[in-house]
Amino acid sequence: MSAPTSWRTALTEATDDGVRIRGYDLRDLVGGVSFAEGILLMARGELPTKGEARLLEAILVSVLDRGIVPCSVVTRYLASSGSPIQAAVAGGILSFGDVYGGAGEQLAEALANHIAAARDAKADRQEAARRVVQHFTDRGLRVPGYGSAVHRGGDPRVPRLFEIAEKANVQGDFTHLAMEVEKQLSKAKGRPLGMNQDGALAALGLDLRLDWRLMRALAFIPRSAGLAMHALEEMTRESGWRHVPNAEVVHDGPAARPLPRRGGGS
Amino acid sequence: MSAPTSWRTALTEATDDGVRIRGYDLRDLVGGVSFAEGILLMARGELPTKGEARLLEAILVSVLDRGIVPCSVVTRYLASSGSPIQAAVAGGILSFGDVYGGAGEQLAEALANHIAAARDAKADRQEAARRVVQHFTDRGLRVPGYGSAVHRGGDPRVPRLFEIAEKANVQGDFTHLAMEVEKQLSKAKGRPLGMNQDGALAALGLDLRLDWRLMRALAFIPRSAGLAMHALEEMTRESGWRHVPNAEVVHDGPAARPLPRRGGGS
Amino acid sequence: MSAPTSWRTALTEATDDGVRIRGYDLRDLVGGVSFAEGILLMARGELPTKGEARLLEAILVSVLDRGIVPCSVVTRYLASSGSPIQAAVAGGILSFGDVYGGAGEQLAEALANHIAAARDAKADRQEAARRVVQHFTDRGLRVPGYGSAVHRGGDPRVPRLFEIAEKANVQGDFTHLAMEVEKQLSKAKGRPLGMNQDGALAALGLDLRLDWRLMRALAFIPRSAGLAMHALEEMTRESGWRHVPNAEVVHDGPAARPLPRRGGGS
Amino acid sequence: MSAPTSWRTALTEATDDGVRIRGYDLRDLVGGVSFAEGILLMARGELPTKGEARLLEAILVSVLDRGIVPCSVVTRYLASSGSPIQAAVAGGILSFGDVYGGAGEQLAEALANHIAAARDAKADRQEAARRVVQHFTDRGLRVPGYGSAVHRGGDPRVPRLFEIAEKANVQGDFTHLAMEVEKQLSKAKGRPLGMNQDGALAALGLDLRLDWRLMRALAFIPRSAGLAMHALEEMTRESGWRHVPNAEVVHDGPAARPLPRRGGGS
Repeated sequence: MSAPTSWRTALTEATDDGVRIRGYDLRDLVGGVSFAEGILLMARGELPTKGEARLLEAILVSVLDRGIVPCSVVTRYLASSGSPIQAAVAGGILSFGDVYGGAGEQLAEALANHIAAARDAKADRQEAARRVVQHFTDRGLRVPGYGSAVHRGGDPRVPRLFEIAEKANVQGDFTHLAMEVEKQLSKAKGRPLGMNQDGALAALGLDLRLDWRLMRALAFIPRSAGLAMHALEEMTRESGWRHVPNAEVVHDGPAARPLPRRGGGS
Repeated sequence: MSAPTSWRTALTEATDDGVRIRGYDLRDLVGGVSFAEGILLMARGELPTKGEARLLEAILVSVLDRGIVPCSVVTRYLASSGSPIQAAVAGGILSFGDVYGGAGEQLAEALANHIAAARDAKADRQEAARRVVQHFTDRGLRVPGYGSAVHRGGDPRVPRLFEIAEKANVQGDFTHLAMEVEKQLSKAKGRPLGMNQDGALAALGLDLRLDWRLMRALAFIPRSAGLAMHALEEMTRESGWRHVPNAEVVHDGPAARPLPRRGGGS
Repeated sequence: MSAPTSWRTALTEATDDGVRIRGYDLRDLVGGVSFAEGILLMARGELPTKGEARLLEAILVSVLDRGIVPCSVVTRYLASSGSPIQAAVAGGILSFGDVYGGAGEQLAEALANHIAAARDAKADRQEAARRVVQHFTDRGLRVPGYGSAVHRGGDPRVPRLFEIAEKANVQGDFTHLAMEVEKQLSKAKGRPLGMNQDGALAALGLDLRLDWRLMRALAFIPRSAGLAMHALEEMTRESGWRHVPNAEVVHDGPAARPLPRRGGGS
Repeated sequence: MSAPTSWRTALTEATDDGVRIRGYDLRDLVGGVSFAEGILLMARGELPTKGEARLLEAILVSVLDRGIVPCSVVTRYLASSGSPIQAAVAGGILSFGDVYGGAGEQLAEALANHIAAARDAKADRQEAARRVVQHFTDRGLRVPGYGSAVHRGGDPRVPRLFEIAEKANVQGDFTHLAMEVEKQLSKAKGRPLGMNQDGALAALGLDLRLDWRLMRALAFIPRSAGLAMHALEEMTRESGWRHVPNAEVVHDGPAARPLPRRGGGS
């Protein structure tokens, strides 16, 4: 097995006299580029256009916080238990799993794979979208990134993001493909099935030339800031460890019973 | 015990038709404020000045990545083990402990407490700085946030941050107190003992009116982006699980010995 | 700085042809010692007596599970979010913080330090207990490990553990000191203030010659098994991501307000 | 969506006057059953036979520790960073990912699914084994749980576990199926390809009637004890934060370059 036992990276070079990210001196980057530009520089190797940076900035803000949702519930439980803030936030990030936070990554992987396959097969966008839908329906799954359990009228952040992307000239093949998927899904359902926040992040993230493996991180990186605020609020406004009262728990296992006497044999 | 069993928050209000952060509709915030402004809005309840936002933006960039350091080592080990990206980044964040990432928080707590005490006592800045130093030396500790094991000539990011803070009119009581501490420490040592990145973040974070409990998060929030890139690099450029070869491990425990035969008694 | 960059351990030696824990071949340990004996071997360097192993076994069982408590709530949220079982259990373990799971460690540290100091000062047990109590009251803290918010009549597991310890001849100086602390606390309160599970683990763990830094682990190691069962139950008996309904959240921050128009200046 | 917002469990009932696991009073379980028996009681709902408990005990010991391997490396980095022991151990557990610690779960899932399918199809063991192998080879994967990168001569713990299982009368359909898979793999390779520790745990775990989703936990539950000892060793025998020296890192990204001047436009 040739598994790694030594260290190499193309991201950042640290020397005794300084730090360079993708070749640029950190002293120049500080004050010279925005946080969104820094992220795109790290992810892609080169600085983005101003439009790309503005779009990523908008994406970062769009996922900053959602209130009391699974990730913040976990963070607040951990903060109230007296674990330090890095543990409270780390626990919240762990909740970006395949069910709660993974839709964007799942859609992005399918979009990325099928756009490549469609290009090879000289298939058009309608055909590529059909394949993306089929990729999930073949597995008995709903297409991730569409529909919303919470926002009946469509996720309010999505049109705003697409508007910014359009102004920034970032909308491209992936957004158009994701919109074609929306059209086909809505037609099949007989009612509008809008792209949700996860879906929009997947499409726009790919048009920003981010690897599909980063889509989940695109949500939890900015949310780490929101989680830190929830940890702080729990630390400064509540006291004692957060818990569920016994009376709110239904026990549906065996009723009280005596422990059987057992011999020492096998 | 009055520990919390119900939920309240002043941060973010989620309703069926939208999300409001500190009262502002998320649709307006997206594209309307920067990520740094969003963080300050969440942390303080009100939008910051443009100068404050620019300073926080610079701080975020200044801690984006450092290369192969404890947090990224942990993230890369976890990514190579096949745990998902949220687990790899969460593990990296766990490394912002009291020794590796806690100096800023420790200094900020002391600065915040002693500036308040000094005001009450009508003590001047020299006296407040003396008390901050004493707070740590009384406990047999070095004052955190000063000196650098890595950068002999002083942390290259620090002067840049202070320059930006000055232009943004954000430097205030805490920065001046931290600089007075630097002066006293250097005098006592007989050589310059410069504020390092942790120290600068503590002073500037307090002048940004952030709670001292957030100083550690100020470092790991932006680093979560760097960690995601390290996870991606490990996933796409290495294969198999990262490990330490047996030959590189020194065993200094008992040599091989036979397991004693033991009876069944007590 | 002489921080570690190479690897050494006295615990376990792995070679190409096998694994030895504290010198004993793992092939001999498997089937040759109990899990409790293995833990004590690792922690202390030598195999325990049968009585010591029986006591640790009882301790492990005593903290196996408690139902729906903070650690299992976190694990179940994470499992329902679709993060893998290692992340769900790791998140639950993070909840053993200073407030929720740290009492045993805090008491054990105080008992260990003050028994040593009392020996040096030739002070008797009453005096040592007085100093343990004072250690906490001086800091405005309740003595951790005594009293129970849940079990009004005293923690039901505690007398059982002491009975087993007595039979196993393990009760020693630390248990006697902890009992003297209980006596003094109850006298001061004017009502019985019994040692709780955390307190009993601290006293018995120290009499088992475990380092006080392991007392928190003594609770979360066996609980990791309980947490895995909670993760499994959530994965197999519930569907969709666990969450708090919006209607159950009280928002006490700013009401809806328009985003102010701001210029581009500083 | 019918996602859970209330709490129910069949595992453990906590009331104001006590705790019952699967109906048995915790006071009776403490001292009345072993830790291994407690785990099987929780997992299966009923107490195991003495033989089953002995086998699980042996399994727990067999994975207690392996020295300096990915999970302990992560734990030690976190402990040296000054994060508390619950964070250090939690981080180590996160490393039981699909690549490093997931083989047992993957094999167990396939064994469980294909034994059921084979029964339905009245296929014999040879046919079921063929399907297990094909399940992985169809996906371009090696069959997990066989072969060892570390132990060339076969994992030393495996024969010991099977010997104990045989004595305990626990070996059953799953072990026999896993052995048939070994036979077929070795025949196809033209050389012995022995079941490794992950494979043995999968087969024996299933014969212990544990859900395949618990196989990864079967490894990290006992390892949590080993990890706690590594954390303690790092805390008490090393000082300062563990790191990789800059000189040991190869940077293969862009060389130093000046930051381009950019205008303010899009």
